[in-house]
Amino acid sequence: MNLTLKDIAQALGISVATVSKALKGYKDVSPSTRKKVLEYAKKVQFKPNTQAAFLRTKQTKLIGLILPKIDHDFFAQILKGILNQAEETDYKIIILCSDESYENERKHIQDLLQLNADGIFISIAKSTNKFDHLVEAQKSRTSLIIFDRYVKILPSHRIIIDDKKAAFRATEHLIQNGCDKIAYFRGDLISQISIDRFLGYKKALDHYKVPFNRDLVLTCNENTLEEGKSKAAQLLEKKLPINGVFAVEDLLALGAMEEFKKEGYKIPKDIACMGFSNWNLADLVSPSLSSVEQNGFLMGKKVFQLFIKDQKNKAEEKAFTTEIIPTHLVIRESTDFGIKT
Amino acid sequence: MNLTLKDIAQALGISVATVSKALKGYKDVSPSTRKKVLEYAKKVQFKPNTQAAFLRTKQTKLIGLILPKIDHDFFAQILKGILNQAEETDYKIIILCSDESYENERKHIQDLLQLNADGIFISIAKSTNKFDHLVEAQKSRTSLIIFDRYVKILPSHRIIIDDKKAAFRATEHLIQNGCDKIAYFRGDLISQISIDRFLGYKKALDHYKVPFNRDLVLTCNENTLEEGKSKAAQLLEKKLPINGVFAVEDLLALGAMEEFKKEGYKIPKDIACMGFSNWNLADLVSPSLSSVEQNGFLMGKKVFQLFIKDQKNKAEEKAFTTEIIPTHLVIRESTDFGIKT
Repeated sequence: MNLTLKDIAQALGISVATVSKALKGYKDVSPSTRKKVLEYAKKVQFKPNTQAAFLRTKQTKLIGLILPKIDHDFFAQILKGILNQAEETDYKIIILCSDESYENERKHIQDLLQLNADGIFISIAKSTNKFDHLVEAQKSRTSLIIFDRYVKILPSHRIIIDDKKAAFRATEHLIQNGCDKIAYFRGDLISQISIDRFLGYKKALDHYKVPFNRDLVLTCNENTLEEGKSKAAQLLEKKLPINGVFAVEDLLALGAMEEFKKEGYKIPKDIACMGFSNWNLADLVSPSLSSVEQNGFLMGKKVFQLFIKDQKNKAEEKAFTTEIIPTHLVIRESTDFGIKT
Repeated sequence: MNLTLKDIAQALGISVATVSKALKGYKDVSPSTRKKVLEYAKKVQFKPNTQAAFLRTKQTKLIGLILPKIDHDFFAQILKGILNQAEETDYKIIILCSDESYENERKHIQDLLQLNADGIFISIAKSTNKFDHLVEAQKSRTSLIIFDRYVKILPSHRIIIDDKKAAFRATEHLIQNGCDKIAYFRGDLISQISIDRFLGYKKALDHYKVPFNRDLVLTCNENTLEEGKSKAAQLLEKKLPINGVFAVEDLLALGAMEEFKKEGYKIPKDIACMGFSNWNLADLVSPSLSSVEQNGFLMGKKVFQLFIKDQKNKAEEKAFTTEIIPTHLVIRESTDFGIKT
């Protein structure tokens, strides 16, 4: 099926070099020969060999995408955005999953460098607290773009949201609706977005002079429905008085709501609940869940666009770009008190 | 960063051919030279160039995966299964989305053949009713594996479920719980799985002597929540007496449930509802949704395993393999009448 330049040359009785030059439009091939080659190449549906093209251009047209999780609504939206842009080019996306492991992440980056990937798009695993693999990628000819979960101390291209501001707004919304005992289901203690969201929560309490109570902050590492349920059960067991919950991921908030409902609490009347990420299921549950919309599709598009820009600028000196994707609150039944704020 | 054989040869003052032979373990290199080369290669973290390796092995170690949709729970599970297996090898997965379009699908296959992908894994787009692109892939050196949405008239490697049987069991469950006016939200009129599921529904009605009413069969093309709502509204508007709904995708069933609830119907008492695919949100809604579990993760693993088998068998004559992934009903509140069947 896949004919080579040699096959075409033999079929037309001319040299391989002439075929190659004719296909590339070189001037030192006669118009009649060029016409003959192009017509024949079209007829046999000639496809230039990608691997051979690499040896010429030093571009593989391959991009590695490393996601921390696969079955995750937000990352799926980002993937959609990346593919949406990639399809207008001849870049192909290799998908890899770190499964939140630094070791996997490191191996994936090494594999991608070995593959001569033109770009690496990565959202950092929760357990990653060494960055040598990212630095190695930056030293190579690949364009490294970090999105969503970034590393504060590592200068890099970044497409991110303002997690602190988003968490501030979400907490503020709860406070403005009368919540003054807001439990916070925080993420892990390592990743920057988890730290930033916590700072946003705390800043909102400070700003509105709501006392901070350390007992109301629960650290979640799995961010699953089950973890949400069990943390909510912990809160109820300790008989801590709460009237609001803000969770760093929708699944945690949904799990907490289930537990509260099971124990007879009314939502939002007794406990208002707010998630983060605005998964499509936030709208389907009852009561529907208020959340922070992060616009993953737009984030994915911007990641790819920054890559293209970086490839063009390769020759010049490098300056890193950070782009902030705007977020907004989506208010649904779980925090709707019928009070206009 | 990426040193070449030439760099190593220069550093050690030996020929490129000797370095290459030493790395490959050829016998005509002295043990001391081999040791020197291997130690140096290790020290500088030498990575053999993938594109050069292709010219030698004719394997790219690239596999193309063409999904009809990205933000789709079932396909995400399949992707997880494929990556789970791929990570134990040095194959990389290029992800592409047909977005249910034949034209996109065709272009993606052509791109993958040009890229010399060792394998192509595909679930067919709904609109695909020509198969020349699949035949072309089968004629090439790539291993084509079709999963979930397959083509009946095209012999091929297949990892699928028994859609007819699964739909029979789901319909049977509704009938055994007293439903005798079961609306069917069917899929498109082209794809095989959509046809098979309809046949399963019809066979169950026949088997249990429940009259078939054409007016209760609604064709859905989007399989979204909104479509489920609007089809349910159509049914209610026509005042057709129904006491059960079986939808070919969970989102349709969820949309229908929302509409029925809004109009004051009790579920399952007035109308029992059954979905298909067992998305993770089936368990989160209220009432929780009964559905057909398809085991996408296992399907993905089997797809990759069949690919590896096919690559090994390349030399021999080709026989196509079909593997059926077992499904089972997950009964939840939306069809739970408290009657043991």
